[in-house]
Amino acid sequence: MKVAIVMGSISDKEVIQKTQEVLIKFRVPHEVRILSAHRTPKEVDAFVQQAENQGVEVVIAAAGKAAHLAGVLAGKTTIPVIGIPMKTGDLGGMDSLLSVVQMPKGIPVATVAISGGENAGILAAQMLSIKYPELKERLKAYKEEMRQGVLEKDEAYKEQWNGEDGR
Amino acid sequence: MKVAIVMGSISDKEVIQKTQEVLIKFRVPHEVRILSAHRTPKEVDAFVQQAENQGVEVVIAAAGKAAHLAGVLAGKTTIPVIGIPMKTGDLGGMDSLLSVVQMPKGIPVATVAISGGENAGILAAQMLSIKYPELKERLKAYKEEMRQGVLEKDEAYKEQWNGEDGR
Amino acid sequence: MKVAIVMGSISDKEVIQKTQEVLIKFRVPHEVRILSAHRTPKEVDAFVQQAENQGVEVVIAAAGKAAHLAGVLAGKTTIPVIGIPMKTGDLGGMDSLLSVVQMPKGIPVATVAISGGENAGILAAQMLSIKYPELKERLKAYKEEMRQGVLEKDEAYKEQWNGEDGR
Amino acid sequence: MKVAIVMGSISDKEVIQKTQEVLIKFRVPHEVRILSAHRTPKEVDAFVQQAENQGVEVVIAAAGKAAHLAGVLAGKTTIPVIGIPMKTGDLGGMDSLLSVVQMPKGIPVATVAISGGENAGILAAQMLSIKYPELKERLKAYKEEMRQGVLEKDEAYKEQWNGEDGR
Amino acid sequence: MKVAIVMGSISDKEVIQKTQEVLIKFRVPHEVRILSAHRTPKEVDAFVQQAENQGVEVVIAAAGKAAHLAGVLAGKTTIPVIGIPMKTGDLGGMDSLLSVVQMPKGIPVATVAISGGENAGILAAQMLSIKYPELKERLKAYKEEMRQGVLEKDEAYKEQWNGEDGR
Amino acid sequence: MKVAIVMGSISDKEVIQKTQEVLIKFRVPHEVRILSAHRTPKEVDAFVQQAENQGVEVVIAAAGKAAHLAGVLAGKTTIPVIGIPMKTGDLGGMDSLLSVVQMPKGIPVATVAISGGENAGILAAQMLSIKYPELKERLKAYKEEMRQGVLEKDEAYKEQWNGEDGR
Amino acid sequence: MKVAIVMGSISDKEVIQKTQEVLIKFRVPHEVRILSAHRTPKEVDAFVQQAENQGVEVVIAAAGKAAHLAGVLAGKTTIPVIGIPMKTGDLGGMDSLLSVVQMPKGIPVATVAISGGENAGILAAQMLSIKYPELKERLKAYKEEMRQGVLEKDEAYKEQWNGEDGR
Amino acid sequence: MKVAIVMGSISDKEVIQKTQEVLIKFRVPHEVRILSAHRTPKEVDAFVQQAENQGVEVVIAAAGKAAHLAGVLAGKTTIPVIGIPMKTGDLGGMDSLLSVVQMPKGIPVATVAISGGENAGILAAQMLSIKYPELKERLKAYKEEMRQGVLEKDEAYKEQWNGEDGR
Repeated sequence: MKVAIVMGSISDKEVIQKTQEVLIKFRVPHEVRILSAHRTPKEVDAFVQQAENQGVEVVIAAAGKAAHLAGVLAGKTTIPVIGIPMKTGDLGGMDSLLSVVQMPKGIPVATVAISGGENAGILAAQMLSIKYPELKERLKAYKEEMRQGVLEKDEAYKEQWNGEDGR
Repeated sequence: MKVAIVMGSISDKEVIQKTQEVLIKFRVPHEVRILSAHRTPKEVDAFVQQAENQGVEVVIAAAGKAAHLAGVLAGKTTIPVIGIPMKTGDLGGMDSLLSVVQMPKGIPVATVAISGGENAGILAAQMLSIKYPELKERLKAYKEEMRQGVLEKDEAYKEQWNGEDGR
Repeated sequence: MKVAIVMGSISDKEVIQKTQEVLIKFRVPHEVRILSAHRTPKEVDAFVQQAENQGVEVVIAAAGKAAHLAGVLAGKTTIPVIGIPMKTGDLGGMDSLLSVVQMPKGIPVATVAISGGENAGILAAQMLSIKYPELKERLKAYKEEMRQGVLEKDEAYKEQWNGEDGR
Repeated sequence: MKVAIVMGSISDKEVIQKTQEVLIKFRVPHEVRILSAHRTPKEVDAFVQQAENQGVEVVIAAAGKAAHLAGVLAGKTTIPVIGIPMKTGDLGGMDSLLSVVQMPKGIPVATVAISGGENAGILAAQMLSIKYPELKERLKAYKEEMRQGVLEKDEAYKEQWNGEDGR
Repeated sequence: MKVAIVMGSISDKEVIQKTQEVLIKFRVPHEVRILSAHRTPKEVDAFVQQAENQGVEVVIAAAGKAAHLAGVLAGKTTIPVIGIPMKTGDLGGMDSLLSVVQMPKGIPVATVAISGGENAGILAAQMLSIKYPELKERLKAYKEEMRQGVLEKDEAYKEQWNGEDGR
Repeated sequence: MKVAIVMGSISDKEVIQKTQEVLIKFRVPHEVRILSAHRTPKEVDAFVQQAENQGVEVVIAAAGKAAHLAGVLAGKTTIPVIGIPMKTGDLGGMDSLLSVVQMPKGIPVATVAISGGENAGILAAQMLSIKYPELKERLKAYKEEMRQGVLEKDEAYKEQWNGEDGR
Repeated sequence: MKVAIVMGSISDKEVIQKTQEVLIKFRVPHEVRILSAHRTPKEVDAFVQQAENQGVEVVIAAAGKAAHLAGVLAGKTTIPVIGIPMKTGDLGGMDSLLSVVQMPKGIPVATVAISGGENAGILAAQMLSIKYPELKERLKAYKEEMRQGVLEKDEAYKEQWNGEDGR
Repeated sequence: MKVAIVMGSISDKEVIQKTQEVLIKFRVPHEVRILSAHRTPKEVDAFVQQAENQGVEVVIAAAGKAAHLAGVLAGKTTIPVIGIPMKTGDLGGMDSLLSVVQMPKGIPVATVAISGGENAGILAAQMLSIKYPELKERLKAYKEEMRQGVLEKDEAYKEQWNGEDGR
């Protein structure tokens, strides 16, 4: 069981570290690479070959602007590829989003929200849970944890608000 | 091995039939339902429960406009959910796309292109191939088939064009 | 007479407090919950049931990104639902707006402007004023107050400007 | 109990007739006017005055492009105003939507989807149901009817599909 | 010769002061009001009547979001109306722009760029120059001044750059 | 009194003929040219020179896509320039609109709606009416005519609708 | 002297034939291939290698949706790459445009307008004219031809219009 | 061998200096001007004439908002013109991008990404490398340098991450 994560630029680091935190939480072995579809095309090729050979089961790719990385990887493997379109300084990430999600017929990229680092990790775990039942349990626990988190905030808000204006 | 497909409206039929054709080609058992997140919320609940109980391994949901179906399903299960944002008559599907892909932290939807029926089917097969190695082979064969299709068109175009202007 | 307000995340607090200030001003009893369509679907269900049982007359829901909360509530009740699409850091709230307003045929959400906390409160008061004539008076007084506020600024600007450049 | 509907141009007729069909179904008395915020500003003024005097309880306004009609009406009354942004030939209705929904602080317009004629009618009925309990019943019946409509299509699709490909 | 300027909110002040600076430079008498199409509709009416009576020759209106002010004024007068769509915090001013420029057939608003305070002043002066030849001269002088400003920067850049890298 | 109209391409003809019809109605002498900012830059130069020499008082320019014609003209004259952004087949005219309206500081273009041929003509007449009082009267008559047109449709709709469903 | 053209799909044929017509007119030897960045990545690799070896001097790539073809080619060669973003049925080509033009630092794609087949051909000829002076002459002749075409239409319109309405 | 760079405003300086740094690196002689299509049209004319006379081989133009500079230059020369659409404070550069890239048939502008200063320089070098083989070598070295830069970051990230969380 293994996830391979690629980011197109070191500037995507903060988003990818959220992906890693999720995978660590779910105890999913993974590795992270910095590789660019445009600046290191051969290394991207080698990375995909290696992923196939080493039995990598999910690939996650983050890139911004004309974000081709996820699509290029998806063209070279049948491993499911999750794409994270990065927020951009000028168009807010609309460019990244359309470049990642609007893949032509035949080559899907499983796209998550703009800069959606956590969700890429969770989606990877969900895909892996098809094969690994223990992940199913961890995902359910995580869902319950999120639920508890919301309920605690719900309680806290009621108290704080009542305290504040006395109603 | 099983995929459950839901479309929010009968008008999404043509796109979903492309998903079905892909799954039939890959011999992936699946069933199709018409259920609306807004018009049949209880049936959507029942559908998710049933999916969990019957061991459904991937859910595919297609909806248009304020397309909540995929996200609502993703909130109720840890089965991976693939979302197909449908093209719309006024905004071209930008509304559907943002409603499907921009999911908040914690609840991913694996989004494919606007009206990307085939790609939803292929992505489902890729996810399932993590567990079922025979699907890996079929996916590779399909990729090769697509490749051959492009190469044939490449050949045909060269000939036709040469025939046309004699260069 | 009662309004139930739900926000999808504690980060929507500042906008919702503007809604609350308006309702306090109009003396409209209300309560505020933090509930997520995706992270606490069951609690959302319970909330709607309770709202119907307790005679809640207007529901207000604020959420951002793929903002499904208002639409999900609207699917489960015939109480009018007001949706506040929250501003987002990447797409400015265009994603929230389209996810809230572009509801399919049959299930309306009364949508106000992006992060329009005050307007959600005023709209709730307007809806309630159909039944409660005293609210009509308060709304008219508020409208007059707003008018006076503009006229005072109009006066002040004339004076300041004249003072500044002597014309 | 009364709804006043205004459309900015005769070309909005098809959408407004859907609003009317819904109101007829719910037995909500209403009248329809063609008035333009820009071409007949005095008549719009008179219309609002008359609405206030005659006890109109909900106003519905449909307009396209720089769609000011709903906002102008909302500025002149405390009756809740529902805005229908019309689809446009060039920008698909994005212009109408932003012109209707992005109202400044203090003057809400309850905005429905682009060309959302039915939903404007349903939302009006929901608002009126705060005061008129019989409407609550009709709205619930309508919701059930919609639900049945989806379930019938769900059944029909299963049969047809099974018939078609024998699975 | 007179220009009447209206801004929808005191927050538009910085942009309007640029308009005023231009008009002062061109010695065009003008006055500035703060009036809201939605919060002070009667004062807007009175303003237009007064403008017609006092022989105002150009109206400039600045507003943001669902920016109806310019269009509402244009509906009530045949004086040419210049609209300034204000930048907004969420959608960058795209909402204001479409609300101002996409006016329906029959009621034009002469729209300038988002937050284009100076250009509104210059355009007003150009319109007035049809009647007042002395403005033509001032506009030509201003154009020449702008030209000189660019040429000076062109010179300065060459020198600085040469100084910096010695080429 | 004279208006000079330029369209960037013969394909803009239908929109410009609406401008011409308006000007004929208002009895405003005008001439129409087909000139391209990019394909005939020298003729555009000559056209502007001639316009200045012949006392042209308003220029109208229609162009689509990267629509530079109006801005280029505005850079070469102090005559007010009205820009008509043409609808485009791919982006609906958003490209034309932004290319026309977003002029930099110093060089305004009085922009009307996408493909707003009539409004360009009316705006030209409004500008000219600053100098020519007879145009003021014609503009008022036109406004009244439009008003009557709306009122007639209002009457007709009431009758037809009543006839149709007997309410 | 040689141009290599690649289109991502046979459906781009009509646009590419306009590119070819331009290159034939300029007598620029070229060949056309149908190759997909995603479906035939190895053939795209081989194509680039061959292009480098055969001394291809300009590459033109047309693709739609998440249009990665031009960017992928640009990542693998230092030959200048011209990208044609294709119009798409849902988002009008905005997706293709952003996927082609928003290339990251280091790997430019010379992007022309959406479906701008002719302009890709002309730009290729302009690039080649740096080395081949005879192309400079042909480009100037073409520019003159375009100019004449506009002037003829200008003349024709004047005559037709005068004939039509007798002015 | 010579590149002429024009920026529409001194505020584009930071982007253009990146273009210059690239050209200095590639040892491509160039000069930089500040000229505005709208504020200094005659100087823009003179600049193009001079460029043709002095054998300038590539023109680079940067401008923002209704960014006409590149298109205006392209209309007056057959030298290839590279356009840099500048980021804008309100619409993020979408206005600049569409104004630069959506050029009509016959007059291409080779458009790079929003504020893509480096890429404009690299593209210029690529165009020149058609004629000057030594540039080809420098471009290949630069590509290799970029590749090394990515690989170093890839190595560093692996180490740092491993150091940080001990996996």
